[in-house]
Formats: sequence, structure tokens, C-alpha cells
Amino acid sequence: MNTFIGCEKTYNEAETVLFGVPFDGTTSFRPGTRFAMQAIRNDSFGLESYSPYLDKDLEDAAIFDGGDLDLPFGNTSKVLDQIFDYCQEVLKDGKKFLMVGGEHLVSLPTIKAAYEKYPDLHLIHIDAHTDLREDYLGEKLSHASVIRRCHEFLGDGRIFQFGIRSGLKEEFEWAKEHTYMERFSLDTLKEKIAELQDVPVYITIDLDVLDPGVFPGTGTPEPGGITYRELLEAINQFQSLKQIVAADVVELSPPYDPSGASTAMACKTIRELLLTLDK
Amino acid sequence: MNTFIGCEKTYNEAETVLFGVPFDGTTSFRPGTRFAMQAIRNDSFGLESYSPYLDKDLEDAAIFDGGDLDLPFGNTSKVLDQIFDYCQEVLKDGKKFLMVGGEHLVSLPTIKAAYEKYPDLHLIHIDAHTDLREDYLGEKLSHASVIRRCHEFLGDGRIFQFGIRSGLKEEFEWAKEHTYMERFSLDTLKEKIAELQDVPVYITIDLDVLDPGVFPGTGTPEPGGITYRELLEAINQFQSLKQIVAADVVELSPPYDPSGASTAMACKTIRELLLTLDK
Amino acid sequence: MNTFIGCEKTYNEAETVLFGVPFDGTTSFRPGTRFAMQAIRNDSFGLESYSPYLDKDLEDAAIFDGGDLDLPFGNTSKVLDQIFDYCQEVLKDGKKFLMVGGEHLVSLPTIKAAYEKYPDLHLIHIDAHTDLREDYLGEKLSHASVIRRCHEFLGDGRIFQFGIRSGLKEEFEWAKEHTYMERFSLDTLKEKIAELQDVPVYITIDLDVLDPGVFPGTGTPEPGGITYRELLEAINQFQSLKQIVAADVVELSPPYDPSGASTAMACKTIRELLLTLDK
Amino acid sequence: MNTFIGCEKTYNEAETVLFGVPFDGTTSFRPGTRFAMQAIRNDSFGLESYSPYLDKDLEDAAIFDGGDLDLPFGNTSKVLDQIFDYCQEVLKDGKKFLMVGGEHLVSLPTIKAAYEKYPDLHLIHIDAHTDLREDYLGEKLSHASVIRRCHEFLGDGRIFQFGIRSGLKEEFEWAKEHTYMERFSLDTLKEKIAELQDVPVYITIDLDVLDPGVFPGTGTPEPGGITYRELLEAINQFQSLKQIVAADVVELSPPYDPSGASTAMACKTIRELLLTLDK
Amino acid sequence: MNTFIGCEKTYNEAETVLFGVPFDGTTSFRPGTRFAMQAIRNDSFGLESYSPYLDKDLEDAAIFDGGDLDLPFGNTSKVLDQIFDYCQEVLKDGKKFLMVGGEHLVSLPTIKAAYEKYPDLHLIHIDAHTDLREDYLGEKLSHASVIRRCHEFLGDGRIFQFGIRSGLKEEFEWAKEHTYMERFSLDTLKEKIAELQDVPVYITIDLDVLDPGVFPGTGTPEPGGITYRELLEAINQFQSLKQIVAADVVELSPPYDPSGASTAMACKTIRELLLTLDK
Amino acid sequence: MNTFIGCEKTYNEAETVLFGVPFDGTTSFRPGTRFAMQAIRNDSFGLESYSPYLDKDLEDAAIFDGGDLDLPFGNTSKVLDQIFDYCQEVLKDGKKFLMVGGEHLVSLPTIKAAYEKYPDLHLIHIDAHTDLREDYLGEKLSHASVIRRCHEFLGDGRIFQFGIRSGLKEEFEWAKEHTYMERFSLDTLKEKIAELQDVPVYITIDLDVLDPGVFPGTGTPEPGGITYRELLEAINQFQSLKQIVAADVVELSPPYDPSGASTAMACKTIRELLLTLDK
Repeated sequence: MNTFIGCEKTYNEAETVLFGVPFDGTTSFRPGTRFAMQAIRNDSFGLESYSPYLDKDLEDAAIFDGGDLDLPFGNTSKVLDQIFDYCQEVLKDGKKFLMVGGEHLVSLPTIKAAYEKYPDLHLIHIDAHTDLREDYLGEKLSHASVIRRCHEFLGDGRIFQFGIRSGLKEEFEWAKEHTYMERFSLDTLKEKIAELQDVPVYITIDLDVLDPGVFPGTGTPEPGGITYRELLEAINQFQSLKQIVAADVVELSPPYDPSGASTAMACKTIRELLLTLDK
Repeated sequence: MNTFIGCEKTYNEAETVLFGVPFDGTTSFRPGTRFAMQAIRNDSFGLESYSPYLDKDLEDAAIFDGGDLDLPFGNTSKVLDQIFDYCQEVLKDGKKFLMVGGEHLVSLPTIKAAYEKYPDLHLIHIDAHTDLREDYLGEKLSHASVIRRCHEFLGDGRIFQFGIRSGLKEEFEWAKEHTYMERFSLDTLKEKIAELQDVPVYITIDLDVLDPGVFPGTGTPEPGGITYRELLEAINQFQSLKQIVAADVVELSPPYDPSGASTAMACKTIRELLLTLDK
Repeated sequence: MNTFIGCEKTYNEAETVLFGVPFDGTTSFRPGTRFAMQAIRNDSFGLESYSPYLDKDLEDAAIFDGGDLDLPFGNTSKVLDQIFDYCQEVLKDGKKFLMVGGEHLVSLPTIKAAYEKYPDLHLIHIDAHTDLREDYLGEKLSHASVIRRCHEFLGDGRIFQFGIRSGLKEEFEWAKEHTYMERFSLDTLKEKIAELQDVPVYITIDLDVLDPGVFPGTGTPEPGGITYRELLEAINQFQSLKQIVAADVVELSPPYDPSGASTAMACKTIRELLLTLDK
Repeated sequence: MNTFIGCEKTYNEAETVLFGVPFDGTTSFRPGTRFAMQAIRNDSFGLESYSPYLDKDLEDAAIFDGGDLDLPFGNTSKVLDQIFDYCQEVLKDGKKFLMVGGEHLVSLPTIKAAYEKYPDLHLIHIDAHTDLREDYLGEKLSHASVIRRCHEFLGDGRIFQFGIRSGLKEEFEWAKEHTYMERFSLDTLKEKIAELQDVPVYITIDLDVLDPGVFPGTGTPEPGGITYRELLEAINQFQSLKQIVAADVVELSPPYDPSGASTAMACKTIRELLLTLDK
Repeated sequence: MNTFIGCEKTYNEAETVLFGVPFDGTTSFRPGTRFAMQAIRNDSFGLESYSPYLDKDLEDAAIFDGGDLDLPFGNTSKVLDQIFDYCQEVLKDGKKFLMVGGEHLVSLPTIKAAYEKYPDLHLIHIDAHTDLREDYLGEKLSHASVIRRCHEFLGDGRIFQFGIRSGLKEEFEWAKEHTYMERFSLDTLKEKIAELQDVPVYITIDLDVLDPGVFPGTGTPEPGGITYRELLEAINQFQSLKQIVAADVVELSPPYDPSGASTAMACKTIRELLLTLDK
Repeated sequence: MNTFIGCEKTYNEAETVLFGVPFDGTTSFRPGTRFAMQAIRNDSFGLESYSPYLDKDLEDAAIFDGGDLDLPFGNTSKVLDQIFDYCQEVLKDGKKFLMVGGEHLVSLPTIKAAYEKYPDLHLIHIDAHTDLREDYLGEKLSHASVIRRCHEFLGDGRIFQFGIRSGLKEEFEWAKEHTYMERFSLDTLKEKIAELQDVPVYITIDLDVLDPGVFPGTGTPEPGGITYRELLEAINQFQSLKQIVAADVVELSPPYDPSGASTAMACKTIRELLLTLDK
């Protein structure tokens, strides 16, 4: 009974699987993203299942809410393996997925799984941070390194970054040669979507791309971000992509969202993405 | 002594009556709007009584703060009757009023009272939600149905809705035939004000029209809304209406406003509306 | 060890001194700015020391974090004297400073000290409030009077105010003859910076110039303000000023910032200002 | 999957039914008890299913978690009817129940249903408040009148009140003739339990009997109450009652429990009561 | 209309005057006591006016709520003078008073005024802290020095301290020669009350005598304190004092009381003291 | 400058080393203990350095505050190794230590290090939970298993547990044969201290032994615990132990302590323990 609003199909009926990954084990500054999916499910009942933007309704879509993965705390690589196995299973069954984090590191196994099925995978990465560190305090498996790890298998020319406004100088330098990066805004997103419309695409949205003034509910607030309207318009542009194979929404941290406004933004983002995945 | 800042005239001296309706009895998701007027009066002392936007001062206006109505909890129809009687009395005495909610359902008796005195009444409705349901879980008297109930006496061509971005598909369909509705923004408000400048107008502002990123203090956060500046500019346009007979501001919920910023926005909205009513 | 991120030079090595003034003794409405610098130092570790806006890094700059002044509570004029002495010492040693408040009254002795060294000093004042009262409840030394007090020694033609949207009618009238004031926005800042590029300039930023919707962490929320992006762009324009002699950032109040988003904005503002001072 | 910890039997297997009543419609001061059961289910996972006090485990007990009743907001008498019907059904099927409120008024239909099956019913009432008002602001159906309403069918000699420390003078006078009342403590509870051991008993626990210093999570804090250990010892004494036919735990209000400590107390109270009901 | 519950007599009718002093200007650690009286008045409506402990009702007592003094911020000695003048006036009119702080320093002028009328005044001081410093960071007028300042006019043998558990070693040494001090508890209070029953007595209660576990709402939490029941019993013993001339309750700090439980304790303390003063 | 109050000796001068371990990586329910030591240092300035209980002052003691260990997130066994190495170094230098967690798992390496130096080590364990699980969700290194892991090297007859009130049935059974366990209270602590007075003792205090009503600031609230006074008296009894070689205080979680009262209790516990270690 306790699913995301309007996502009440069975696994077999579903074309898209929604699931949560309550993991924040490498978060250095302020943990809490583990609570995101529970808050999102509860508060999704404050949202309508109908989107006046897309004129579509979750009640009419083929979506299964698979609940949250049950993860062992304190053992990062076991956690990542378990996520990978789950996604691989879903993809093998011919379905798409929308994963909800957790910290950004949990996108590594989900993108890997999508890549293994779609070797021509392209990645749209919307975030405040570069996430391109070689390692973080010696650890290679860190939220601050997740896109760098993805580059190891995706390679040059496949990663498209938007909204980036924080990182080490080295990361910005490195990006110049290996990824497409738009700093500070999403202004060129539309143009890049046009280029990518026929290839398999994975979309990863770190919600801290939003300005913390309007989206305080994150462990890594980085001022100078975009408004929710700008993000909503971006998501609605994804309609033109013909092959979105999977997506994720990460880094909502309910302990920093006393009013629930950030959780409401996560809910609406997920509704719009689910309706976009469900073609 | 404990009034809204600068509203210290007696009832007899006043041309406009400000009063609060601390009722949230049909709120399904997150109650709390009953605390709005108390918070607004306390925090109004952080505001100046002078508006540099309108170059007018509350100290120079003829406004009486009538306090809050004393309502029986748990009996919705008795509550609505009591509000209606109060407004009818004020209007009979040749005064205007500004009501502060409470949940949106409390606008039903206030609009009804205004309509009974001004049968040619037109309604400007600024909100995130359509509020056009036939009923809500079987109840016809619900915050989600308030404008639909008003349509029963106002009829077609009298209701002008702005900022709407949430509702059932049926509500959006219904609106196409019975109300003027601008979705997502206030862009056409100016033009409609020009059309309405000579008729009697009631203005109802549900503060959740604001984006919850900038206005978290509401029980029904709906992302994708307008900024406070956009609302302020809208209110300042009301100056051109020649016959505003009454107005209301509803749905501030202080429990979801830990910093007081949303309450400050409600206070400033009320100051500007009072100065607009006081011609 | 506990300094603002990347500010680890010694006093002797430094060209710029960062220090905190934890004083909120004349705050009438909601105290709390005394906690600002402690929160800022702690949370600065969530920020990178590198600015992609200016392509500069705090690690490469010559900045000393001098800690917080140790102040006697309950004795305002002693407090102001102590701040003045500290600044005078720093300036005498040929250094610039960035002071972090505290309430806005603490800018009076810092501006005074700068003026005594640079008699041709010009003041850029970014704020929601005029701060031009002759006195506040009989007290001449009040946060609401600080710019009026500065005018007593700076005189006409030296004060440039931006973003102002609150005050008494008398203050707005007075400003017409004695200061340059842009109401509501920062639109003419660029033009004024061009005029001031060769004279000594002090910059005082009251963070409540930001809209409380995006910056709730202040004791004096005044709706209708600017976004953080607008402030960030303004700060980046200060690069063209050739003689910034000192600056301050005041009125962050951590008790009204439950999520830390406002503190993050203060941190980023300070980083950009420090990198701007460090030419 | 989302049940109270260890309550995973089906309705048919169960001897005891646990269910929630998320209603706070007549709460005059501070609403919020509607959120109690949701918080209790979530946080019950921080509790063990085993009780070292009773040496029993919920996993071994025959308990079904029936979820929450789905109630129409704003219509009190419809709500009470619906609760009554549910309880009557459960009792008719030969089961006991433990109801979790909600405000105290929701105990009226549950006690009524128990009384209709067991005409010799006795009531143990643990509370800070008398709840014996004839009416509250004219309404007879109010949380402040619930025990008075129960007296109308139970009659004299059947109601045993403990911990009472707040009410009108008239209520204390009235109680002298119609109920057994121990003021301020639970000291005589043991003795009364001995008297009642062979008759059918309903236990209603208003958690505000606890001192608000240790249990802040209630809308009606009344200082001078008992400690949690005293309540726990009282509950463990209920083991000697041979015929507990039903029970309830009401008035937890999660919005006033920022740390979750009060919710944890409610969870433990429920675990001990369930293990006591499950003989 | 906005008074403490049941205190609705006029000044002339009253025998006891209740008033608030919203001052926390020398608070070094965490300000906020300035908000106490406003919170107390609002929340007093969650309390009954009848005390079952004393079997008396505020409605029957002769009490005037004089509101809060209007104080200039940032000028401590002016504030103290103003408080002194107010109390002197009340005493001259033959009335008693109950003052609600504010920080503890505000008891200095109120005790002084009582002493000037009753030169044989004895002081009962209930607190966690000695408050016997010669000065605090050089300031003689500090919350940490208030009882030492009172000793300057009261002299030896007149000050009776209870519950004390924090201070400098020097303060505890000094107390041995100049005051009666019971450390850690109130165990000897009853005995001392018997000794003082016929002399004029002033009672000052710093609410931080309560353990912060049960009373978190204070700026100076000092663990190891008494329970609220112990305080309530102490207050009820004051009935035997024949000449209580005035009293105060200080140091409630609402910003550290998110649930309102501490405010409820302050309200009940005030109700019991008012009913005790009103003989 | 930013140390625990009064702990300003250098490492070489010190006989006792205080340090923090900001780790909560295996916390399953609610993370946050990583923030404990930072909060404790900040708030220790609200405490006096003098203890009237022990009549000793931190200023006179030989204590070094070694700051917090810098730990790699997401790699539990590396973290434990690093803690072990630090403690071994301190013990080798002939010093004692007081470690402040973090979650309880961090006591494993500190107890191990003490055991390697003192093979006859005895452990006093004060806690709400048994912590005797063989494993937790398959992980042997978990906060729920820490005392079981210690038993692997300490063996039978060396572990003395007090205040225990939560665990699996198997854990309570296992304890009967392998540890001394007092359930629910500390009543026999004095007697056991007498038995242990001449052997080397390590004291580990999980603050959740306190009732969450008085100590909400923990991730694992377990109602029915002891009061702070009972804990304080227990700590003061440790004076009779002649060979305390090290100690720790774990599981304070500042995010669940909005008022700071729990942090104040942790601070006072640490002061008393430091003064006890410093013979």
C-alpha cells in the first residue's frame, strides 16, 4: 500500500521500475540521504498523479514501485554490487528504471549496469559538483569521484555535464579534455538534447544543482544554483529523447528539509521523469 | 495593543476591517494554518508600516484589526455560518474587509457575503491549485472544492484564475468551459485587471501560489511556482482596480516556516493589500 | 586549525585579515547574529577553496583568519571602541580586512577606522534597509542608524546604497539629498562601480538584501529581495574596483537557518570577497 | 511490509488487531496527533520485538496490523461512526483490539463498541486531564468530554481514573460522585487492578499523563506528570487482569517531538500492551 | 485580550501585578529569554485557570497583567533603571508583583525596589548557578553576578540559595561566609521556610534549576538538576510564608524549547505563584 | 584555541589524552554521532571547569585535547585500525585516554588497545543495549556486536554490564553465561566497583543508557532508562577505582538534540570522567 503515488502496477505489468537506495555511507559532511525515499513516498500523497505540464497521469502509466534495497551498512563495495545486480535484473527483463538515492556514489553501479546493456550509452549529468576527483581522502569509491569512475568505462565524448559550479581546479581542467561541461547553468541543454535524441541516454540528476536557497534539503549546499522552474523546464525537454534507458535522482537529504519543500520538489521531479520514461 | 502593525483605528473609525479565521478543519495533509494570524500579528512588528512601493503608510489609513473569530472545532458548517455572519455585518456597515485564513475553505462564506451585497461580483483567484473538485473524499465543503462552490453562485465568466499548476485532469477540463484560467504564471493578470477595472472585485490569494522553495510555510507545497517579487508586482497592479470590495490571504502554515520568512511574506502581502484597499 | 577554509597564513604573511565580531546587542527583533562566524567557519569546509567564477584559490592567497574578537556583553560603546582599535591596528600594518558580523552596528567602527586612514573613502552599501534613522527608540548607536552615523563623517556624495526596500518615509526623503540610493535592485551597481574604480572603497554587505525566501537566516527578513545569483554577479563585478580597502558581511543569523543554506551563502560570499580583496 | 514491528500475521490468524485512527479534528490548541501512527510504524523498527520485561516476543504473538482507518476530514460524527463500525466488526470476529489515536475523542466509539459486547465493562483511564466536561465551547463531542460521554452508558462505579492533574473545578467535584479518581499519581493502580482482575476491562492511555519534560510530543503538555518508568511499571501490572478486552493509546503528536523520543515511548508502550493483550 | 490566562482585572482592582521584562542583553552564551513572556502568554491558554493543587482559581484572584516593559536595547543601565521605577510604583500603590524575565540580571532592580520598601527583606533564591561573581569579563552588571550585587544591599544572613550546582570555586567559598547555600537539591527548603514564615520574603526562581533533560528551554543548561515535580512541591510549600512581597521567574528561553514543554512548565509555575501571592 | 574547556595542556605535559572519533558508518537507524565531538567542544564553554561534586578543576588537571581523528568514510576496517594505532601510541607513552564517539563500534579498537597493554583488563559497560549480537545483518563489525567482539579477547568474567534493557532474547540468554548483567538499573554498580577496585578497568558509557525523555540526543532512543542524576552519581563512584586505564563516552547524536540539553549532559559527563581519570 505504501508506494509512490500512482505507481501500483505489479513488476510483471510494469515497463518502468522505481526503486530506492537508502545509502549515504561515504558522505563526508552531513549524512541523511538514506532517509530520502521514505520521505518521498510519504509526501508523494501531497502531489497529484496528473501532470498538467505533460498532460499525462501516473495512474495510466506502467510503473512498479519496487521499494528500497536492503543494504548492509559499513561495507561500501558489497552495497555497490547489490545495486548493480538489481539493475541488471531489471534491464534483462526488458524494463527501464528510475533509481532514487541516497548519495551520488550509488549511481555508479546503476550507470554501469545500463552501460553493459547499452554499450553506446551517453550520460546527461546535472549537478552542482564536477564529481571528477581521482579519489577523495584516498578512497576511489566516493560521491566526489562518481563521474570520474563512470568515465573509466564510458570514455571521452559520452558525458554531458550541466549546472556545474564547484570542484577542484584540477577537475575543471580535466573536464576540458574529457567531458562536455556547461558551467553555472543549463542553457545549452536543449541543444545537446537535440544531438543525443537518437542514442541511448542515462540521466543522472543530483538535486544539489538547485540553488540551496530554494532547495535546502541536501547535505552539500552550493549557492548560485538554478531555480526549480529551470529544472522543471529541463526535464520537460527530455521528452524529445527517443531512447532514455534509465535515470536517477539523488542527494535529497530530509534532515535538512524541515518544511518538506525540498521533498516536494524531489517528488515532482520523479513524477515528471516517470511520465517521461513511460512512453 | 496586540494588533497588526499600524492598524489601530476603532471599528467605527475604520473603512477596512482586518480579521483572522484560525480554521484548518478540512485540511487533509498537514494542518497548521490555524496558527497563521497569531504569527502574522507577532511578526508584523519586524515590518515597517510605510510602503516604499505605494508611498503610503498604514498609520495614515483607516484600518481596524478585529482580532480572530472564536470558532467551534469539529463542526465545519457552523464555522462557515459564523464567518458569513461576521462579513455580512461588516459589509452592511459600509466597510471593506481583508480576511486572513486559515485554510482556503474559509473563503467560501466571505466571498458569498460579498456576492450577496454585490451581485455583479468578479473573483480574482491566485493559487497553485484549481480548487474545482466536485467533492473531496465525499465532502462537498473542502479546501479542494472552494472555487467550485463559489461558481455555484457566481456562475460562468466571473472567475479569473492565475498561477494554477495542480489538479485533477477533470478540473482542468472543467475550467476550460467555466472559468478563465492561466496556468503556471501571472502573465495575463495585468490585461485582465484592465478588463475588470470598473466592476466589483474580490481578490483571494492562496499563498501556495508561491514556489515552496521561497515560501515553504504551507501545508500543500507545489513546486514550480512564482517568486515573491512576481506576487508583489501583481499586488501593486491591483491599484488600478476601482472597486475592490474585499480580499483574503490564506494557507500560511507557521509550523512549516521555522525561520519566519514565509510569515514575513504574508505580512508584507497583507500590508500592501490593506494599503490598496484603503483608497 | 579551526579557521575559515584555506585561510591559514600567519598574521605577518597575510595581506588580508579575516575576523569575526560576535555582537548582536542592539538587535531589537530576533537576536542570533553573534553565532554567525562560528557557523561560517564550521560550514566553510563544505565549500571548495577554489572559485571557478574568479579562477582563483584561497590556498594561493595571503589571508590570515584572526578569529573572533572577545567582547564584553551589555556595554555597546566599549564594544565599538574595541572593534575600532583592532581595525586601526590592522590598517596601520598595511593590511586590508574583511569583517564578519554580528549585527550591522558593528560596521560603524570598521568604516570609521578605514575612513581615518583613507579620508577620501567611498562606501558601497548593499542592504534591504535604509539604516538612516536619526535614532532608534532614543538610541543613536543602533543597527537601524549605522549608515546615518557613517554619513556624519563621510558626508554627502560618498554613500552608494543598493537593494533598499524598507525604512521610514523620512529616511527615504533624507536619502534623496544625502546619498545615492537605488531602491529594490542592484541594476545600477555596475555603472557606479565604473565611477568609483579609482577611489578608495569600503564595501558593506548586509545579507538581508537577499530575499528571505532564499536566505531565511537573518533576524530581519524583508521580502522582495534579490536572488543569490544576483548578489554573486554583483560581487564578481567588484573585481574592477582598484582600491577596495576593506569590506564586511553582516547579519547572518544561524538560529533562523535550520538547513544551513544561508550559512553556505555567507561562506561563498566571503570566499569571493576574500579572493577579490587579494589582488 | 510497512507494519508495526513484528505484527505480521493476517487478520484471520490474529487474536489481536492493531489499528490507527489519524483524527485530530476537535483539537483546539495544537493539532498533530493525526500523524502519530505513521511515525510509530516507521520508528518501531528502532525497537526490538522482544520484551525483557515480559520475556515475550511480538514475533510469537498473533497480531495483525490493520493499517489506518481512512477518514473524512471535517465531519466529526461520520468519523466516530466509522470507527465504531470497525471495532464492532473486530469484536464480532472474536478478536481484541489495540487502537492508536489520534486525539482522545476517538476512544468514545471504541469504548462504546467494547461496552456493547461486554455490558459489564470497566474502564481504566490514565491521563493528565479529567476529560469530564459536559461540553467544550458548546460541542458535546470533544476530546475534553470523552470520559463524560462514556459515563453516559457505563454509569457510576465503572470508571477508574489515574494521574489526573488538570480540569475545571466542576469536573473534580463531579468526579467525586461518579468515578474513582486518583489525582497526580498512579499509586493506587495496583490495588484497583486487584479489584478488577475478573471483570472485562478496557484500558485507555492518554500519553499526556507523562510529564511533558520527558514526553514533549503532545498537543496538551501538562507539567507535573509521571515518568516513563512509572508508566512502564503500571503497564506491566496489567498482566494480572484476566479479561482485558481492548485498549488504546492516544495523543502522541509527532510535530512536537523533534527528537523522536516521545514516539519511541509510544512504540514501547504499544509493544508492552500488545504482549499483554496476547495471552 | 492577550493576557496571561485568567489575569483580567484592571490595575486598580488588582492586588498583584504580573509583568514581563524582555531583556537578555548580557547573556553571553545563547540569547532568547527576551521571547519568554510572549510565549508564556500565548501558551497559557493550554492551561486551566484552576489549580487542583491549591484548590484556587485565577479567575477568582485579583491580578492585573501589565504587559511587557518597553526597553531600549544595548544600554543595560538604562534598562535596569526603568525596571526599578516600574516596581517602585507598583509597591507604592500597595500591590505585590510577579516579574517574568528575561535573563537573571533583571532581578536586580526588582529585588532592590522590594528591599527599599521592606528593609528587612529576605531572599529565597532557587537556581542551578551561584550567580555570585564579583564581575563577569569585567562587567559588574551581569546575569552571573546578580546575587552578589543583591548582597551588597541585603547583607549577610538574608540570602537563602537552593539547588546550586555550578559556579567558580571562589563563589562556593564566598558563599560559605555570606549566604545559606544548599547544593544540588531543595531538601532543606521546607525547614528554611519555617524559619522565614514571619519576615518579608522575595522569591527568585531561575528555571534552570530544573534538569535540562526535563527543561531544555534555557540558554544555560546545567545537567543534574531537579524534576518539575520537585519544583512544584517547593512552590506549594510557599503557602506557609506569611509575607511574600514579590517574586520572579526568569531564564525561560523559547528558542531552545521546540516542543513548548518548558514554556508549559513556566506557565504552571507562574499560575501557582500567582495563586500563592494572592492571599 | 578550540578545545574542550580547560584542556589546554600540551601532549607532553598531559597525563590524560582526550580525543574524538567522528564515525557513524555502521549506524543503521539514524546517523549523526559523527557530529558529537564538535558540538561537545563548542558547548563545553557553557560549563564551568570546576566540579563542585569532586571539588576539582580541569584547569588544574594534566589533560591534552588531541582533536578528532581524520577518518576515511565508507571503509570500516581501515577506520578501526587507525583508532587502534592512535590509542596504542598514547598508552605506550604512559598516558590514559578518554575517547568520545561516534557510534559504539569505535570502542572495539580502544578497548582492544587497552587490553593489549593490560591483559588483566576488566570492562564496565553502561548501556541500554546488550550489544552482544554475533552479527548484525551479516556484518560482524557492527555497533550491535561490539561487546560480543570484546568478549572474544577479554573472555568470561571480565565484562560487567549495567542499565541493559534491550536486545534479542538470545543475547540475554548468552549473557547469563558469559557476562555480569544488571538489567534496567545501576543498582549493583557500587558493589561491583568495590570488587574491581584493584584491577585495571576500562569504562565504556553509551549515553543511551539515559532515558530518552531526558536525553533525546541519540540515534537509538530506548525508553525506560535512568535519569541524569543516577548517571552522575555512578560516575562519582568511580573515584574508588584505583586503576582506570581508559574510558569512553559514545552515541551522542546532536541532530536529535535541538535544545542542546543532551550535549550539555555529555559535556558534564566528560568533565567528571576527566577529573576522575586525573588522579
